[in-house]
Amino acid sequence: MAIKEGLRPGGRSARVQESVHRATRELLEEQERASVTVPLIAARAGVTPSTIYRRWGDLSALLADVALARMRPDSEPLNTGSLRGDIRAWAEQYLDEMSSEPGRNMMRDVQCSQAPGYCVAILGGQLQIILDRYQDNGEVLPRLDHLLNLIAAPTVFRILFSNAPLQIEELHELIEVALR
Amino acid sequence: MAIKEGLRPGGRSARVQESVHRATRELLEEQERASVTVPLIAARAGVTPSTIYRRWGDLSALLADVALARMRPDSEPLNTGSLRGDIRAWAEQYLDEMSSEPGRNMMRDVQCSQAPGYCVAILGGQLQIILDRYQDNGEVLPRLDHLLNLIAAPTVFRILFSNAPLQIEELHELIEVALR
Repeated sequence: MAIKEGLRPGGRSARVQESVHRATRELLEEQERASVTVPLIAARAGVTPSTIYRRWGDLSALLADVALARMRPDSEPLNTGSLRGDIRAWAEQYLDEMSSEPGRNMMRDVQCSQAPGYCVAILGGQLQIILDRYQDNGEVLPRLDHLLNLIAAPTVFRILFSNAPLQIEELHELIEVALR
Repeated sequence: MAIKEGLRPGGRSARVQESVHRATRELLEEQERASVTVPLIAARAGVTPSTIYRRWGDLSALLADVALARMRPDSEPLNTGSLRGDIRAWAEQYLDEMSSEPGRNMMRDVQCSQAPGYCVAILGGQLQIILDRYQDNGEVLPRLDHLLNLIAAPTVFRILFSNAPLQIEELHELIEVALR
């Protein structure tokens, strides 16, 4: 199921989406995710289960849609006045958010969506905003794909597949490698 | 559910495990993973569903166990005669295997196991074998965690969260960064 973008804000369709998303978020906070079902979400959102099935297809597609919506950043990356400072601030916040239990669950849910690539697009968009700030400074800027591969990738990989997330010193070291 | 290691080879318990693993692998090859169920696996393996539930807990724990067993390499990394050559050969094979549909599914299943860290332990073990070959050569060897963060992490990240896996040129470039 594709992600529903560009809905008319305030329309009936947008209201259903907002209500279902909110119900899902609330239930995920209140109980074990394994016990969250489409009928439960429907009841909380005040819609019928078939509305959810028609619109999202199944529970994993709905969870993926909710996870992607939560990943959309609500603000621009912090502007610290230097490229290194901006990247550090962004990367530290990203590591912090993704290491949390909700962060890990978001990453797993997103993989079940039909558009997991959207995740890299969001991260890339944030990092591009940072790069754009310094493009007239005469500095040699790192490539965007380098920042994704050397900073975002190890952050996510270690959280999902290792016993411990990156330590802050390792993160800083990777940033230096990316800026070299 | 913990991974079952160290079972007496050939014992009844080992035979049940082998039979259930084989049935799971066959069913995953024959049909959509969403339609693979514990009763189906049990019927194919010639055991009762309760044997599976008792031993593995639930389907996702069984799938994770099967995925981890498949990840265990069946041979040492290729010895090409040079550190760079060995790492390239290993990384190219890893990228190739993980980009496949079964590879992607394995990575997703492993995340549902109680021991996702085992995944990094397996990769690290393979890379350590390569490093050990060259430790008396006088070369400055890269750190193991650097190889994992700069080569394995982007390979996995791009497959799971991007629209396209790493290109072979990007992989080679990352290997150069790791060897610097």
